[in-house]
Amino acid sequence: MAKIKWKGGTLLSPVPAVLVSCSDGKKDNLITIAWTGTLSSDPPRLYISVRKSRASYEIIKRSGEFCVNLPNEKIVKALDYCGVKSGAERDKFADMKLTKQSSYEVSCPSVAECPLTLECRVFEVIESGSHDIFMADIVAVSCDESLVDEKGRLMLEKAGLIAYAHGDYFALGKRLGGFGFSVRKKRTKK
Amino acid sequence: MAKIKWKGGTLLSPVPAVLVSCSDGKKDNLITIAWTGTLSSDPPRLYISVRKSRASYEIIKRSGEFCVNLPNEKIVKALDYCGVKSGAERDKFADMKLTKQSSYEVSCPSVAECPLTLECRVFEVIESGSHDIFMADIVAVSCDESLVDEKGRLMLEKAGLIAYAHGDYFALGKRLGGFGFSVRKKRTKK
Repeated sequence: MAKIKWKGGTLLSPVPAVLVSCSDGKKDNLITIAWTGTLSSDPPRLYISVRKSRASYEIIKRSGEFCVNLPNEKIVKALDYCGVKSGAERDKFADMKLTKQSSYEVSCPSVAECPLTLECRVFEVIESGSHDIFMADIVAVSCDESLVDEKGRLMLEKAGLIAYAHGDYFALGKRLGGFGFSVRKKRTKK
Repeated sequence: MAKIKWKGGTLLSPVPAVLVSCSDGKKDNLITIAWTGTLSSDPPRLYISVRKSRASYEIIKRSGEFCVNLPNEKIVKALDYCGVKSGAERDKFADMKLTKQSSYEVSCPSVAECPLTLECRVFEVIESGSHDIFMADIVAVSCDESLVDEKGRLMLEKAGLIAYAHGDYFALGKRLGGFGFSVRKKRTKK
């Protein structure tokens, strides 16, 4: 396979595309973030990278809190809208008819339409050129009841989550295997 | 929608699942990483979080270099294997019949079977409990010729990339829209 060389670029793909909610006590805002990831398992931590120019930047910097709301296919239009429009000019909750829901451990609202919300508290901010990296503890998770089976297992495959790759939003497709499948012994039929 | 409250957990989804290659000059190794994300656009930077117990940890810590190879559906078994097995005991390149390819800007090999490789140089390591966060500049990208059209545009939607969610690998499914679609004016038919 012949390869082409390019200069460094942000081509890690697919990445999450999440609705981040935040509040300064007066204004609640939403911003779509793709530059996000899990930092560690124990303690559970993630980051979001935000440009200084965004309205949510100052809100998160001052409040030290935000929620990562995982969107599903039903609200992909709202997901896109909240990445394009500025909260300085618009009330994105109202524009997209999204419902504010009280969070458990942080003071900013969650997005009720999102099947899963990770409530986050910032512990460090690192500048990195175009973006500031907000590193945060995941202090609570809220999940739609409908995604939990009778044994308490999360059926995340039923959530209709969205991935983002090179400027496009995608539904998740075929399940290719579960972690560890490559080394699992096959059952022998008797 | 009634919600259930859980304690904080690593439920950000879907996330990438990438084959990270590294080398100490004597041994080339592979490790599958899902705790990764883009940190900033300019300069282009990403991170990978690695447990201290992994064989790749010391290699990356000492060499300060690694490659993020984006796998496709054809090599999902190798992707899983490299996340389960330890490079201390196995030669994962040989086990999975993956081909080493010289990288452009770093001394560790890339994985030829992966359609896209991001060559990375570490600029900072931050400890975070279970994992160390290797923050790195993306210093070069190599891409399969077959994914570039005659205008030089990357057709990443043809790469067959893989997403990871809650212990399962998924193909990307239906394209739901491109960035900005929610505010784009529709063409009026005359």
